[in-house]
Amino acid sequence: MHEFQLIKKYLSQLSKKNKGSLNLNDDVFFDKSKKLAISVDTYVEGVHFVNFKKPELVIKKIIRSSISDIICKGIRPKYYFISASGNKKSFTSSNLIKISKSLKQEQNKYNIFLCGGDTVYSNKLSFTITSIGFSQKIIPRNNAKINDDIYVTGNLGDSFAGLNIIKKKIHTSNLLSKYFISKYYLPKLNLNLSTKLMSIANTSIDISDGLIADLEKLINKQKFSYKLNLNSVPISKNLKKLLIQKKLNKISFISQGDDYQILFTANSSKSGIIHKSAKSLGIKISKIGKICSNRQKSQIIDKKGNKIAIKIKGYSHSF
Amino acid sequence: MHEFQLIKKYLSQLSKKNKGSLNLNDDVFFDKSKKLAISVDTYVEGVHFVNFKKPELVIKKIIRSSISDIICKGIRPKYYFISASGNKKSFTSSNLIKISKSLKQEQNKYNIFLCGGDTVYSNKLSFTITSIGFSQKIIPRNNAKINDDIYVTGNLGDSFAGLNIIKKKIHTSNLLSKYFISKYYLPKLNLNLSTKLMSIANTSIDISDGLIADLEKLINKQKFSYKLNLNSVPISKNLKKLLIQKKLNKISFISQGDDYQILFTANSSKSGIIHKSAKSLGIKISKIGKICSNRQKSQIIDKKGNKIAIKIKGYSHSF
Repeated sequence: MHEFQLIKKYLSQLSKKNKGSLNLNDDVFFDKSKKLAISVDTYVEGVHFVNFKKPELVIKKIIRSSISDIICKGIRPKYYFISASGNKKSFTSSNLIKISKSLKQEQNKYNIFLCGGDTVYSNKLSFTITSIGFSQKIIPRNNAKINDDIYVTGNLGDSFAGLNIIKKKIHTSNLLSKYFISKYYLPKLNLNLSTKLMSIANTSIDISDGLIADLEKLINKQKFSYKLNLNSVPISKNLKKLLIQKKLNKISFISQGDDYQILFTANSSKSGIIHKSAKSLGIKISKIGKICSNRQKSQIIDKKGNKIAIKIKGYSHSF
Repeated sequence: MHEFQLIKKYLSQLSKKNKGSLNLNDDVFFDKSKKLAISVDTYVEGVHFVNFKKPELVIKKIIRSSISDIICKGIRPKYYFISASGNKKSFTSSNLIKISKSLKQEQNKYNIFLCGGDTVYSNKLSFTITSIGFSQKIIPRNNAKINDDIYVTGNLGDSFAGLNIIKKKIHTSNLLSKYFISKYYLPKLNLNLSTKLMSIANTSIDISDGLIADLEKLINKQKFSYKLNLNSVPISKNLKKLLIQKKLNKISFISQGDDYQILFTANSSKSGIIHKSAKSLGIKISKIGKICSNRQKSQIIDKKGNKIAIKIKGYSHSF
């Protein structure tokens, strides 16, 4: 059973039903009266990161994954908490120096600061990050409108390629390996787009579980479908090279997670301002599809206009 | 190395130095401008709770331990987040029903509600709880004054006895076992005293690591010492029975953690209002010592007035 199904079934009755708060069906909690956004995420070694051989990179990836939840909702994160569970082997002085240095760099990059947390002994390494931001409002989930355009920032799939290279499932040149591994550990967050997004997007999510899975999550309480143009889904020149080399299917890459790009929908009247914002901020934003009524089924179209069957629905952390 | 030393050494440089925020030297972060208190705690199976055979009790203990951090600082918790790491064995439907029911009971008891969290796969069971409260101000740590009286709520040591009974290190009657185990799992939090404490206490902490350890944490940045009257440290009639039966030292019990009683200091002029508050709220509050200048060493005095050497400094989760 998937995490959100579990939460929904047993815990959603525990969240207070009030207009100001999003329910448990979102990655971010928003307290309207306090103008406070909170996101809590846990990362376990072997599940969310391969190992801790490069603590300086793992810690950056974790911080970015966490604040990404808030950034994609149009809110700038302000501070964060780290709760670390591990043993002496993971938290040697040498590793702590690396962790501390990386955190400092992330703090400067994203203008956030550490406020506390917990450090506990466990023979299993994991981190829980609580990210906090303040805002008058938030871009909600389940707020797409029929005929909205679907957009995505940056490129998809690079991170999944990086993960496969780390796991030695894909072998490629040193240069490409370096590129993809860096994309896996250091997703580029669109902090400067964040607050602008509030006046543009009807609904938004960051792609952590995969394009298809997150798109379905984004509209999961709405009786809508979507039409996705596979050819419009942006991938890097390097991923193109890899796809040609390996003759792998594009959809198997872009359906996987860890991209931390922003997926959002907007009224077609916004296309001008989106184009302008992308240009002025130097961010790639691609129109990749449309929200449709549920009279038709969701579909993915290839460049010849043919429908593609969706086999991989994305990566979901399940019990 | 202890958790707070670790944090201090490597991470405290990352917390922003500003007047409004407590530093990492406290269990609770307080954002003065937003009037927001946040506490993050992680609980690992085998470290913070023995096992998960009674999920309905473990989850209550965890929630109470977490909100205790905020309550002891004079603030009422408002909502909380749970991040659960575990496997199918821990999160069966049957266990989730028990967890959900327990959470509902705690929510009603303490007027809090669940706002979100995360559920991830791990072969090690752990929970991270983020507790949130709002208040104009907070009772700070390291704010004791010389000659302050030292107070503690309730009784100490029952929880440690319960833990030892669960671990089968102590054997006693069924009736006493039931009493102590209940005290271990279900510490009684002094929610109604909480906001009153703001006008009474100079500094406060909840006893999670043990009386001596937490008293030293409470004043650890102040050049003070303390004088503790062992005979005044409150213990239950049942613990008295156990101590007589087992002929164990009282100090070995009260120096251990998990009591979740409030330890605070107050000016001697407050003794009247403290006595009155205790009576009107039906809460036991005991004066157990005094804050002294650092010209003398900290000391614990027995009922004959003799000094006792401190061997056990309390339970601290260390790497």
